Amino acid sequence: MLTTAQVAEFLRAHDDYLILTHKRPDGDTLGCAAALCHMLRGIGKRAWLLRNDETTELFAPYVDALWVPEDFAYRTVVSVDLAARSLFPDNAQALLARVDLALDHHPSYEDFAKEACVHPECAACGEIVYEVARELDALTPETALALYVAVSTDTGCFVYSNVTANTHRVAAALMDTGIDYRAANKRHFRTKSKKRLALEGALLSEMEFFDRGRVVVVQIPRTLIERLALTEADMEDIAALGGLVEGTDCTITMKELEQGDWKVSLRTGARVNATAVCARFGGGGHRAASGCVISGMTQEEAKEALVRAVEETAAENA
Amino acid sequence: MLTTAQVAEFLRAHDDYLILTHKRPDGDTLGCAAALCHMLRGIGKRAWLLRNDETTELFAPYVDALWVPEDFAYRTVVSVDLAARSLFPDNAQALLARVDLALDHHPSYEDFAKEACVHPECAACGEIVYEVARELDALTPETALALYVAVSTDTGCFVYSNVTANTHRVAAALMDTGIDYRAANKRHFRTKSKKRLALEGALLSEMEFFDRGRVVVVQIPRTLIERLALTEADMEDIAALGGLVEGTDCTITMKELEQGDWKVSLRTGARVNATAVCARFGGGGHRAASGCVISGMTQEEAKEALVRAVEETAAENA
Repeated sequence: MLTTAQVAEFLRAHDDYLILTHKRPDGDTLGCAAALCHMLRGIGKRAWLLRNDETTELFAPYVDALWVPEDFAYRTVVSVDLAARSLFPDNAQALLARVDLALDHHPSYEDFAKEACVHPECAACGEIVYEVARELDALTPETALALYVAVSTDTGCFVYSNVTANTHRVAAALMDTGIDYRAANKRHFRTKSKKRLALEGALLSEMEFFDRGRVVVVQIPRTLIERLALTEADMEDIAALGGLVEGTDCTITMKELEQGDWKVSLRTGARVNATAVCARFGGGGHRAASGCVISGMTQEEAKEALVRAVEETAAENA
Repeated sequence: MLTTAQVAEFLRAHDDYLILTHKRPDGDTLGCAAALCHMLRGIGKRAWLLRNDETTELFAPYVDALWVPEDFAYRTVVSVDLAARSLFPDNAQALLARVDLALDHHPSYEDFAKEACVHPECAACGEIVYEVARELDALTPETALALYVAVSTDTGCFVYSNVTANTHRVAAALMDTGIDYRAANKRHFRTKSKKRLALEGALLSEMEFFDRGRVVVVQIPRTLIERLALTEADMEDIAALGGLVEGTDCTITMKELEQGDWKVSLRTGARVNATAVCARFGGGGHRAASGCVISGMTQEEAKEALVRAVEETAAENA
C-alpha cells in the first residue's frame, strides 16, 4: 500500500489522468474526483473525469465541467472511493483491469488496482485526498470546496459514527482556504424539497419495528416512488431516516429497483456488523453502513430474510 | 473585556463559585456551566451551578449532580451564555447586580457583569470556555464532553451558518480526550421520539409561505401542544425546521405560551437581520438567530406583524 506521500510522488511522475467514480455516485466519490482533477491540473497535468451518468443534480455543479472529452488519450487511471468491481459504472467496465491507482476508505476494498492507498479509519475518502493535496501543496479553494463536500456529505455533516477528530481537523483546514462552506451546508444539509418532505412523512408513518424496537424497516416500494414521482436525488441518503427513531440501533432501508429487486441499505450501531449481514446477500461496505441487492423475493420475503440475518449476525457477535 | 488568559487568572484568584445559566437553558449554557464547574473543581476550587428548573431531560445528565446545595456560601458568581438581564431565571433575579464574570458569545450581551469575556465570532460559548480550560490546563474528558455538547448543540452538529474553522478545531481537540462523542451525537442529533416525529409531520403540513416563498411561518398553537402532549424537550430546536424547505431564507417560528402570548424564534439568511427584526418586539439574539415574545395579539395579528417587520427590515438593508 502507498502512503499519501507516495501517492503524491506517483501523481507527479505520471500524466494524462482519467478519474473513475463509483456507481450511484455520492458526494464523496464525486467530490474526491473533482478535487483530484483540480489538483492534478494545478501541478500542470492533464486530467479528466470519466462521465458518470448517474450523477444527481445535487452534485452536478462540482463535476459538470470536468467530464472527459471523447478524444482524450488517457494514460493513467485513478479510482476514488471505489471499493469493488461490482461498483464500476457501466461505461467503466472496460477499465476493470486498467486502474493504476485506487484511493479508498472502504475496509471491503477489492485489490483491483496496480497501486492503492486505502484508509478504512477515514470517515470519507476526502480525508485521504486532502492529505494528498497537502503533500502536493495544491490545496486551492476550488479543490477544498470539492473535498468539503466529500467529507461533509459522507458524515451527514459530522454527525455519523464514522467521524473522528481528524475529520474535524480536515474540515477546519479546508474552511481556512476561504470556501463558502455555509452555502454548501445549506445546499446539502439544510434544504429539502417539498417532495422530499412528503417522502419522509410517508416513510415515518409506515415504519415497521422488530426485535423489541431495535430494528426498524423502512420500505420504499415502486408504488410510492411513482406516486410521488421520486428521483434518485429525492431519495439521497434516505437510509439515515430510520435511525432517527428513539430506541433503534439497526435500520434496514429497502428500495424497490424493479419488480422484485430490492436495493438494501443497512445502518447499524455497535451491536450489529452491517458488513457481515450484507455479505450474506453478496453485498458489502462498512461495519456501520453496508448495502446489497436482493433479487427474486417478494417484499415480505426480502424483509423477513433481512431481519433474520440481522438477528443471527447479532447473536453470533453477542 | 478580559482575554481568555485573564479569565483563567481571574478563576485561579477567586473561589466559592456559583455558576448561572440562562432561562429555557440549552446545551450551550448547560454544557458550559458543567464544564466550568468541573474545571474549577479540577484546579481545587469549590464550584456549583444555580439550579435551573427548566432543564430538560435531554441535558439533565450533564448537570444533575452539580446543583448547588442550600448551605453553600458562594462568593464569586459567573454566568455562561447569558446575554441579557431578561434571561436570568426567576431564582437568579437576586443576582442581577451580583455577577462577577460573564462568559458569552452573544453580540447583544448587556454589560451586566463586573468583568466579561464576550466573543460574538464564536458559534458557541463552549468555544470560549474551551480556551479557558486550555489556559487552566484543566481539560479532562468530563469537561470535554460537556463542552462537546455545548459546541455541537449550538451549531446543529456543525451545520448552522455560525460554524467557523475554529469550531471544528475545538471539536477535534475535545474529541482527542477520548470522549464518547458518538453517543452524544446519537443522543442529541440522531434520536427523535415518535412524538417529535408526529410534531414535525404536523408542522410540515401546516407551514405558510410569504414573500414569494422566501419567508416561512411555522405555528405551534396551544391546541397542538395539548393534542400531542408536547413537552419543552419535544420542541427543542424546532425553530430550525422551517429553514429546511427549499427556497426559504427566513423562518418565523411562533409558539403559543399562554392564550395570546407568542414566543417567537427567527432564523434568517444574509438578506434579513434577525436581531433587527426581534428588536422591534423587545427581543434580541444573533444576526441569524434571534427571539422575542409577543403579547396581546391574536395568532393572525402576531403573524402579520412579524412578516411585515421582516419585509421592512429586509427592505432597509437592501
